[in-house]
Amino acid sequence: MKIALDAMGGDYAPAEIVKGAVMAAKKFPCEIVLVGDESKIRECLKNETDTDNLKISIKHTSEVIEMGEHPADAVRNKKDSSIVVATRMVKDGECDAVLSAGSTGAAVTAAQLILKRIHGIGRPSIATPIPTPNGVTLLLDSGANVDSKPEHLVQSGIMGALYAEHVLGKKNPKVGLLNIGEEETKGNEQAKETYALLKNLTTINFGGNAEGRDIPQGNFDVVVCDGFVGNVVLKFGEGLATTILKLIKEEVEAGGINSKIGALLLKPVMRNLKKRIDASENGGAPLLGVNGCCFISHGSSDAKAICSGIGIAEGYVKSNVLEHIKTALEKENMLPGKNSATEI
Amino acid sequence: MKIALDAMGGDYAPAEIVKGAVMAAKKFPCEIVLVGDESKIRECLKNETDTDNLKISIKHTSEVIEMGEHPADAVRNKKDSSIVVATRMVKDGECDAVLSAGSTGAAVTAAQLILKRIHGIGRPSIATPIPTPNGVTLLLDSGANVDSKPEHLVQSGIMGALYAEHVLGKKNPKVGLLNIGEEETKGNEQAKETYALLKNLTTINFGGNAEGRDIPQGNFDVVVCDGFVGNVVLKFGEGLATTILKLIKEEVEAGGINSKIGALLLKPVMRNLKKRIDASENGGAPLLGVNGCCFISHGSSDAKAICSGIGIAEGYVKSNVLEHIKTALEKENMLPGKNSATEI
Repeated sequence: MKIALDAMGGDYAPAEIVKGAVMAAKKFPCEIVLVGDESKIRECLKNETDTDNLKISIKHTSEVIEMGEHPADAVRNKKDSSIVVATRMVKDGECDAVLSAGSTGAAVTAAQLILKRIHGIGRPSIATPIPTPNGVTLLLDSGANVDSKPEHLVQSGIMGALYAEHVLGKKNPKVGLLNIGEEETKGNEQAKETYALLKNLTTINFGGNAEGRDIPQGNFDVVVCDGFVGNVVLKFGEGLATTILKLIKEEVEAGGINSKIGALLLKPVMRNLKKRIDASENGGAPLLGVNGCCFISHGSSDAKAICSGIGIAEGYVKSNVLEHIKTALEKENMLPGKNSATEI
Repeated sequence: MKIALDAMGGDYAPAEIVKGAVMAAKKFPCEIVLVGDESKIRECLKNETDTDNLKISIKHTSEVIEMGEHPADAVRNKKDSSIVVATRMVKDGECDAVLSAGSTGAAVTAAQLILKRIHGIGRPSIATPIPTPNGVTLLLDSGANVDSKPEHLVQSGIMGALYAEHVLGKKNPKVGLLNIGEEETKGNEQAKETYALLKNLTTINFGGNAEGRDIPQGNFDVVVCDGFVGNVVLKFGEGLATTILKLIKEEVEAGGINSKIGALLLKPVMRNLKKRIDASENGGAPLLGVNGCCFISHGSSDAKAICSGIGIAEGYVKSNVLEHIKTALEKENMLPGKNSATEI
């Protein structure tokens, strides 16, 4: 198996990306292609040890898509950018998956334009694993698209359930619709129409409406929502977790000698806690609904996060989820999806 | 000043509500009217001490609106329910504010039907204070309405800014529009249209788009969004905060003797932290946009939360925010609002 890794994407690229690739190549059996500026990548590789026999290669590219650029324009104009070239390697069968910690918009656009959507899927969806006390809840769409139609949310539900089952190993995953109340009649027009469609599906275990609190509490395996809401929730959660840890520090600082000793004794506990609520531990999120394995890591990914992402991407490739999605769409009579297959 | 308190609303009603009223009557100069089942209220009052000279009275009502009931039907049919009678007391000038920890839907509907909306306001908005390291961020609408139009969000911005200034004491409060990116062009249709309107306002300090993480970090004083998104975010935050505290406990349990001693030493720190992130410390949220002071407390409010809510409601009445809103609507040329004044 070969993974195309966007070496130029992310807040700490290329250094941490290259470091992560080396870690992953030592840990997993897959080959890794570092896609990006060859001289910069070689410079970073020099800092790593024991790299001689690793299955790492470099694919040189001359351009980089920056965070602020308009995704569609950038992907169309910068044909030799790392994310475009890496995605094309999957399209051409040279690699089995692409992974990037760069601009999410660019990665999504490149995947849509180059890999294309799965026949019958109206819009791809980012499925982000949110840490919970008993594992993760998959939140999708967490930002690939906004103003989605009910049928797009339904397709997200199907794809999320299959990913949860075949990649995360959840049996008969419980799918919820993110809403503002438990009752079927609650919510905005989008949610009400989506509910009506979801409850008629035969291939997924639809558990009704999920409220905001159900996500971190882990009461559903998969929670479906519009990308606008999902993205807001995701960033709110990151901000809140960081804020709470910051407040604990502040209170410890203000709390005198007892608190400081207490904090010292609790260091291992807090380290474990951080591990459990830290998004980077989860390595990233698949973009579901495109014809190929595309994996999006957090912009702030360090080497460990990249390595973890490569591990999950490997599991994703092996899982055959793409075929399962096609089969499910057929079973749900969504092929060919008149409403869903024609627009981005 | 006289506050009508819905004694029958909330998970711990009437006991905690009555207890909270007694606490508030001892702490604040206002009079409190306990609205609800007189015999039950008297029963609860018996458990309280030193109540002889307190300015507390009882207004008997025979009905209660339960949490599961359809708000509009319930408010229309149960004319002698505590929330309807309490709201009517404000309408009739017998009281200056109404406060309820019962069904939010019922409180909002009662306020809309009985107090009516302020002339020019299309939809009322719940303004919930979210704890941040440096105070609170006001999030509105956090659940009064869904599928709002851009002009409703704009009006929320104006009302939220005036509440933040005159009740929370923030000078020139910075208003943000909740969105999925900083740039003006980001977001769904609703957000893009709202941005275009907000930036042309003259009476508020519009600071551009706010992302999810900006809310808990306190980077804006007021954050405006659709009630669907606001409600999801609010409940997600509650769930996440509870989950993190639960995880800390779990890790301490699993962590051996050092962790347990550490946790003991850190007890005051954790108590302070809980205080700072606990919604009940903030007492509740005003329903802005109706002709009268209506205050909504969390369903799980205990006596302390009710007491704190009464304190803030008192400040709200004194602040004259309703008049400020009317003046601002006039200045922004939103009077009479053709698009906004006709529908609920």
